[in-house]
Amino acid sequence: MVTLKQLAKELNVSISTVSKALNNSEEIGEETVRRVKELAELYNYKPNKVALSLKNNKTKTIGVIIPNILNRFLAKVLFGIEREATKHGYNIITCISNESLEKEKEGLQLLANGSVDGFILSVAEETQMNNEIEHFKKTISQGLPIVMFDRVAHDVLCDKVIVDDFDATYNATKSLIEEGRKQIAFISNINDISVGKLRERGYNKAILETTNLEPLVLKVKKKDDHPKRIKSFFKKTKGIDGVIAADSSSGIIAINVAVGFGLKVPKDISVIGFSSKSESNHTMPKLTTIRQHAKVIGAHAAQLLINRMQNTLEDEDVKTKIVKTSLVKNKSTL
Amino acid sequence: MVTLKQLAKELNVSISTVSKALNNSEEIGEETVRRVKELAELYNYKPNKVALSLKNNKTKTIGVIIPNILNRFLAKVLFGIEREATKHGYNIITCISNESLEKEKEGLQLLANGSVDGFILSVAEETQMNNEIEHFKKTISQGLPIVMFDRVAHDVLCDKVIVDDFDATYNATKSLIEEGRKQIAFISNINDISVGKLRERGYNKAILETTNLEPLVLKVKKKDDHPKRIKSFFKKTKGIDGVIAADSSSGIIAINVAVGFGLKVPKDISVIGFSSKSESNHTMPKLTTIRQHAKVIGAHAAQLLINRMQNTLEDEDVKTKIVKTSLVKNKSTL
Repeated sequence: MVTLKQLAKELNVSISTVSKALNNSEEIGEETVRRVKELAELYNYKPNKVALSLKNNKTKTIGVIIPNILNRFLAKVLFGIEREATKHGYNIITCISNESLEKEKEGLQLLANGSVDGFILSVAEETQMNNEIEHFKKTISQGLPIVMFDRVAHDVLCDKVIVDDFDATYNATKSLIEEGRKQIAFISNINDISVGKLRERGYNKAILETTNLEPLVLKVKKKDDHPKRIKSFFKKTKGIDGVIAADSSSGIIAINVAVGFGLKVPKDISVIGFSSKSESNHTMPKLTTIRQHAKVIGAHAAQLLINRMQNTLEDEDVKTKIVKTSLVKNKSTL
Repeated sequence: MVTLKQLAKELNVSISTVSKALNNSEEIGEETVRRVKELAELYNYKPNKVALSLKNNKTKTIGVIIPNILNRFLAKVLFGIEREATKHGYNIITCISNESLEKEKEGLQLLANGSVDGFILSVAEETQMNNEIEHFKKTISQGLPIVMFDRVAHDVLCDKVIVDDFDATYNATKSLIEEGRKQIAFISNINDISVGKLRERGYNKAILETTNLEPLVLKVKKKDDHPKRIKSFFKKTKGIDGVIAADSSSGIIAINVAVGFGLKVPKDISVIGFSSKSESNHTMPKLTTIRQHAKVIGAHAAQLLINRMQNTLEDEDVKTKIVKTSLVKNKSTL
C-alpha cells in the first residue's frame, strides 16, 4: 500500500500538500490538486481508515446484525434500512448471527472495531432464550449506539422499533367475528418465537371475549408436512368457517385445502394470513393479509440511529417506535 | 480507547510484556497473563485492526456483495456462504449493491480497506448492462481475490460458480415432451436478466428441435397483475397442456389458474416451476420444481475463495464450478 509520504516524495511536494490536495483544500493550486489525485488514483492510494475514523470520529457506516437472512420479513427490514441509510449518505455493512449468541457477539466485536458508528439489530433466538444482554450493554458503553427492532431485549436501554403483533391478530380475529364466523381456527408454524406467542394471544383474547366461541388452534412444526397437517385438521374439525394464519405459508395452504374440499372462499370460509404482497398472489382468490410494513420498520430504525449518532446530547431518553400493522383486504374475506 | 502503553503503565510492566501476555506467549507467567487480560477486559481494550491486519496480512473475514436481498435465491446463497465460511473459521460481512453500479463500487472500496481478505459477489444489474469491470480488476490487482457466482462478468479472470440455467429448462421441457404434451407454454417475469434469457433459450431449443411443436411464450412485467395476465393467456391460448415457469411465482399461479378453469393437474396439464421447497407447498397438487441448490452454490463459492486466499501460488489457473440443477418431481407432472 502506498503512503502519503511516498506520494509526496514522488511528486516532490510536502506531505501536508498531498493531504490538503486530496481533501480539496483551497490553499492548494488546481494543477497540484490534479497531479496529486492522478498519482493517488494510479497507485490506488487509500487513506488509513482507522486513523481517519479516530480523527473524524465518524465512519458514516452502520452495522446491521440480522438473525436469519432466509426470513423474508427480516430481509425486507434490511432492505428498508439500506434504502434509508443511503438517503442520508450512510453505508451499511451486515453480519448474520444465524440465531446464535456466539455469532451475534462476534459480529458486534468485528464491526465495533472502528468499522461502524452504530448498530441496528434484531436479537438472535439463542440470545433471547439465554436472556443475555451484557454484549449489548458493553457495545453501548463503548460509545456505539444500538437500535433494536422486532425482537428486542427489554432490559437494554436503547432505541427500539416494534410491531403490534398482539393487536394485529386481535383485530383480524375481530373482523372475522364481525363477518359472523363461528368456528375460527388459528394456524401457526412459529410457536417457538416471541412474536408467534403474541399473535396467538391476540387471537385468543378476541375469541374468549366473545360468547359461544372456542379457540381452535393448530400448531405445525417445521419438520411436519405442512399441507398434510392442515388437511387432517380440517377433516377432524368439522365446520371451520374462518382461519387466522400466523405465518407466511399457513394462510395460502389453508385456502388451497378449503378449495380442495369443495368449499367456496370467502362464501363458506374466510382466511387471513401474514403473507407478503407477492405471496398473496399465490392463491385464488387472493389472500387477505396482515401487512407488517417491514420496509417502514427498517426506515424508522435507520432514522432513530442516525438521529442518535448525530445528536450530541448524551443522556436523552430512549424511544420505542411502534409500527402498526394493517389489514389488506383481498378476496379471501367477505 | 485504551492503548497497550496505558495498560503497561497501570500494571507497571513493559509494553512488550502486555503484548505478549495478550497473545498467550509462554514467556510470560500465568499470573501476569491473568492480570493483563483482566485489565484489558475492564478497559475494553481492542487491538488496532488495521495494524494487526497489516502485520498478519489476514483478517479471516470474507466480504460478500449481494445485488438484492429480497431475492430468495441470492439470500439462500448468502446463507450457504455463511455456513461454509463459519466451518472454516471465517467471518463474513455483507454489503448490498441494490443492483446499482455505484453502490457495488462503494461496497468494494468500503471493505477493501483492510476489513476483508477477499470477496464473493454476484454482479449488479446496472454493472451488467454497462459492462463495467474495471472496479473488479482493480480490487484483484490490490491482492484481494474475488469469486463471482450466478451473475458473473466473463471478462474478469477469477474463480466463478455458475448454474446450468439453459440445460435446466431444456431438460424440463424435454420431460414434458416425453409425457406427450403438445402445447407447452413458457411463462416468465424475469426477462430482463441474463439468467431469464438463458432459461427461455433452453425452452426454445427443446421445442424447436421437436416436430409439430411451436413456442408459446408469456412475458409478465413486474408491474403487471400477475394472476390476471396468466388467466387471460390461458383463455386466449386454447389447449395448453404443459407449463415451464422461469421464476418462483409463475408456476404456482399457473396451477391455481388451471384448477380455476376446471382442469385436472397433472391429468390435463403438467406444470414445472422454479419455486423453493416451501413455496412448492403452496399448491395442490404440490409443484414439480427445478431446484437450483443455492446453498450448495454458496458453499462452493466460499470454498473456492478460501482455497485461493490460502494458496501461495499467484498465477494458478482460475476455476469455474458448474452447479447442476435437478428436477424435483412432485405431483404437478405425470
